[in-house]
Amino acid sequence: MKINRNYLNLEASYLFSTIAQKVKAYSEANPDKSIIKLGIGDVTLPLCKDVVSAMSDAVKEMGQKETFKGYGPEQGYDFLKSAIKDYYKSHNVELELDEIFISDGAKSDLGNILDLFDVDNTVLVQDPVYPVYVDTNIMAGRRILYLNSNEENGFLPLPDNSQKADIIYLCSPNNPTGAVYNREQLKLWIDYAKSNNALILFDAAYECFISDENLPRSIYEIEGANDCAIEFCSFSKTAGFTGTRCGYTIIPKTLVYEDTMLNKLWLRRQTTKFNGVPYIVQKGAAAVFSENGQKEIMENISYYKENAKIITDALDKLGIWYTGGKNSPYIWLKCPNNMSSWEFFDYLLNNIQVVGTPGAGFGKNGEGYFRLTSFGSRENTVKAMDRLLKFALAAK
Amino acid sequence: MKINRNYLNLEASYLFSTIAQKVKAYSEANPDKSIIKLGIGDVTLPLCKDVVSAMSDAVKEMGQKETFKGYGPEQGYDFLKSAIKDYYKSHNVELELDEIFISDGAKSDLGNILDLFDVDNTVLVQDPVYPVYVDTNIMAGRRILYLNSNEENGFLPLPDNSQKADIIYLCSPNNPTGAVYNREQLKLWIDYAKSNNALILFDAAYECFISDENLPRSIYEIEGANDCAIEFCSFSKTAGFTGTRCGYTIIPKTLVYEDTMLNKLWLRRQTTKFNGVPYIVQKGAAAVFSENGQKEIMENISYYKENAKIITDALDKLGIWYTGGKNSPYIWLKCPNNMSSWEFFDYLLNNIQVVGTPGAGFGKNGEGYFRLTSFGSRENTVKAMDRLLKFALAAK
Repeated sequence: MKINRNYLNLEASYLFSTIAQKVKAYSEANPDKSIIKLGIGDVTLPLCKDVVSAMSDAVKEMGQKETFKGYGPEQGYDFLKSAIKDYYKSHNVELELDEIFISDGAKSDLGNILDLFDVDNTVLVQDPVYPVYVDTNIMAGRRILYLNSNEENGFLPLPDNSQKADIIYLCSPNNPTGAVYNREQLKLWIDYAKSNNALILFDAAYECFISDENLPRSIYEIEGANDCAIEFCSFSKTAGFTGTRCGYTIIPKTLVYEDTMLNKLWLRRQTTKFNGVPYIVQKGAAAVFSENGQKEIMENISYYKENAKIITDALDKLGIWYTGGKNSPYIWLKCPNNMSSWEFFDYLLNNIQVVGTPGAGFGKNGEGYFRLTSFGSRENTVKAMDRLLKFALAAK
Repeated sequence: MKINRNYLNLEASYLFSTIAQKVKAYSEANPDKSIIKLGIGDVTLPLCKDVVSAMSDAVKEMGQKETFKGYGPEQGYDFLKSAIKDYYKSHNVELELDEIFISDGAKSDLGNILDLFDVDNTVLVQDPVYPVYVDTNIMAGRRILYLNSNEENGFLPLPDNSQKADIIYLCSPNNPTGAVYNREQLKLWIDYAKSNNALILFDAAYECFISDENLPRSIYEIEGANDCAIEFCSFSKTAGFTGTRCGYTIIPKTLVYEDTMLNKLWLRRQTTKFNGVPYIVQKGAAAVFSENGQKEIMENISYYKENAKIITDALDKLGIWYTGGKNSPYIWLKCPNNMSSWEFFDYLLNNIQVVGTPGAGFGKNGEGYFRLTSFGSRENTVKAMDRLLKFALAAK
């Protein structure tokens, strides 16, 4: 039996394990110091009441013969797809129910969607990049092109016509930079995709953090996207579902490559390789769209956004350059005093016991940058920024 | 963008849609007749009390800041892996925790595991076959060999040394035939795999239906399997999780091909393309192994096994040949009077309004055979067999 040797081309990722080791070593050497973690992209607020209540009811249903649910549709229950359809309608995007596929998260579908595409396609990612886009394509043996995303282009690079790509990853609001494409910029990407017969994989996992009404939350708000883009979204950050697992993938029926509807290929893939998301979880996800559910999740998102503001206010006071934080849970800052990403990591850990993520871990253009997240508790976020301000101002 | 053209080689499966159409047409023409469905492999008994209670508690935990769970380990929580380890120990199989991977179901992992293997491997399946084994390999473009499984070999074919395969699917208790390999037979498969440097994918989704203590429930009960087999299992049929979604995959660390540990490759695959099973669901699955949980699921399994006995007793009375039903929820019978699978389907539907699954839908060796399942309600199972006996005996 021959293994898939493409796996041997994967680089081991030491980013988060190195962070953990450094934190552990510091903590052991300084047992009296309290360390604040603002590095991880995981939420801390619990599920909202309507979601808990819907899932409790669903668990009860599963325990009664009359209401028990066995196999559900692989592509998700209509009650959840209808709620998502209505949500898109509120952004003026019209979808049909069978263009919506319920998933166990954006990460799964971003990887699994690649099943539908030939190995002989060229993939375009931006650097810095969410590592999953790269690794899933290395696993399949596809050629990968990198597009520089940097301070010069505001970490929002536009198409370079000299790069010929077939599959294009766009993540907006971006992980890790927090930068958000506007309509005109996305239109340029759509035009590029169409003129290259390329496909855009649009990762909208952080769309709920967009508060600027001029910024698009879905690529389908832009004309032409229906013919060249698949959109991935998630309840993970919207509603705190990182440990509950639910997302959705939109594949318009107008997406046709080599005379083949991608929507039909995906349905075939999912009915063969997937058995759907737990009924209980889908009930919880549907409750996110109830009137109360929406109110509650907006409160949670406001909480995180207020955290982001506490961070960006501190950076503003210190004159530190950054992107994100306004329409994104991530703040991507330029390390002060020309420190490298890891130098700044050590600086923060050693001096104020705050942990973030070195930008260099996301690609070469991340060197000299650093990611903080707004997903911590209010108390810790305030404390971390107080420490930063006090230390940095005292050092001036 | 080029699509994966292997998808175009998939044959559309009309089996279950044809069944549905025929049932619909009959039902519309005969609105007064009550139709009993014994065709689908889905459970009907609700989740047991301990599982419901564990999931209710977990939902509550998710709604409180102090007990909320975000991202869990992609490979599953230790509390569930430990319970599975102990379960295997009770069959004298020793596993390490990191050889156990929690999945959202056997079907998902049976498909996704193929990511780890080169396209240039030859796959061996038995005919009749669970269609997922075939379709997932067609999607990847692998060569597939078929091994005849028939009345002559008791639907338990043994290795044919003239067939050189790299990846071998074994399903025992078998879907669709209900036949179960004994230890000696599995040993022959292990010897074959080892002498061909091949890998066995062992689908144990129905192991809990084995009551004969001499029959192996896990391939790891047989010497040598640690070096050549991955095992897939599921809570779907064991504990009624078809709509709750949880399973597990065992990859021994001793499984090495081309100097590469498959366990490590799979961990890399899962951490990149999967985010784990919902915490709530894992809590429910762990409750299956509690003392009460085991008692309750054994009651459910006994209920289904009693249904199977009602079916096989009727077949015995009519002198109809079958496999399965004793250590399996499936009964695979030979259509009487040399009827074809579809002729017998129509015969049952038209004469006694009972729906089963034509064996021909599972491969050429399924022609002339028919699958009934024991997952219906007691009332319907009794009624269906009463009708069968009355009609068949009257016709004699």
